[in-house]
Amino acid sequence: MSGRISDSAVRRLSLYLRMLRDLDRSGVELVSSRELAERAGATSAQVRKDLSLFGSFGKRGRGYEVGPLSETLEGILGLSREWRVALVGVGKIGAALLGYRDLRDRGFGVVAAFDVDAGKIGTRVFGLEVLPLDDLERTIRDLHVEIGIVATPPEVAEDVARALAQAGVGAILNFAPIELGPVDGVPVSTVDIVLELEGLSYLLAAARRNADAAEEEGG
Amino acid sequence: MSGRISDSAVRRLSLYLRMLRDLDRSGVELVSSRELAERAGATSAQVRKDLSLFGSFGKRGRGYEVGPLSETLEGILGLSREWRVALVGVGKIGAALLGYRDLRDRGFGVVAAFDVDAGKIGTRVFGLEVLPLDDLERTIRDLHVEIGIVATPPEVAEDVARALAQAGVGAILNFAPIELGPVDGVPVSTVDIVLELEGLSYLLAAARRNADAAEEEGG
Repeated sequence: MSGRISDSAVRRLSLYLRMLRDLDRSGVELVSSRELAERAGATSAQVRKDLSLFGSFGKRGRGYEVGPLSETLEGILGLSREWRVALVGVGKIGAALLGYRDLRDRGFGVVAAFDVDAGKIGTRVFGLEVLPLDDLERTIRDLHVEIGIVATPPEVAEDVARALAQAGVGAILNFAPIELGPVDGVPVSTVDIVLELEGLSYLLAAARRNADAAEEEGG
Repeated sequence: MSGRISDSAVRRLSLYLRMLRDLDRSGVELVSSRELAERAGATSAQVRKDLSLFGSFGKRGRGYEVGPLSETLEGILGLSREWRVALVGVGKIGAALLGYRDLRDRGFGVVAAFDVDAGKIGTRVFGLEVLPLDDLERTIRDLHVEIGIVATPPEVAEDVARALAQAGVGAILNFAPIELGPVDGVPVSTVDIVLELEGLSYLLAAARRNADAAEEEGG
């Protein structure tokens, strides 16, 4: 349990945990590696390998114990507690995140929001007062914020991420369409919606090129 | 140029293209593989390898020609045209996407939006009328929609994705927190915000375990 697990393994653990929580709510006590695999888009062998890292939860021929495995994964993923989150940039995406109930339900409570726009500062968005960016460092220290969300235009995203890191957050989620490596040693994950769409656009364009080529061959 | 490029290579091409467009707007005509690498979080060698797939754009010792390379990448990625997009689920995230100007600016025009909520149907969200889900198939065919966005609760996401696929979209972007494989042969990309936060939560929890372990050893 020491050492880092790969990003893709962490992703699978999150997906296993979602299924386990659903099963637990439904009163189901045992689950097979095959069922867990299906939810996470993995193989049964991969599930067994992933879970063997954290001890033995399988009952031979019967499956994994939903409750204990669920608790262990919550511990590994740091989800047995609530994390305090601050958001910078209350534009369309930022405001939607403030109203996104799933975040708090899943253990991520947004406790502060910041913007530079004088028209937004002092207003309440889904109950949270928008604070001026000048208050960022003090507020983050006072509220012991652990995760920062960057939802600013790309031009200022790196500066904002650095300010968050210097104020003491331990991890950053970036929605600005720009790649940010770790900032001052703080890990950054980027959710880049346009990049995802461009990946799909590539697939559509490639499919058309293939269709056109096939037609030319046929004709 | 036949055959598929890997997802990660497509991602890098998108990032190179962003930089090339910025440079083009600034009137810059040549760019080095090192500069392109920096923007995409890659190495110069990786850039040269990626771009060698599509012909020769380098001038020995001087760099790549910004204009021609930009046009070629736009063609490869299918970004020299606008794609017609339909969105299902006008909740907080869905509404934010309708108002997200970057989408249209980058070539993804949302032309239809659907919901099941009678209170939303018929209203306009950022200028677009919300249509009932019953109109989905006909509207998508009539408007020649090519990309579907699923922004529904997870319980209905797969059914909605299937309806989009059957109506004729060629690719789907899913924001519901559930893994969807290809649906009826249509590729699906998932943007899972909670999963990204859980990945960061894992890193924070792992860092704390390490810090605690170090303290115990020290004491």
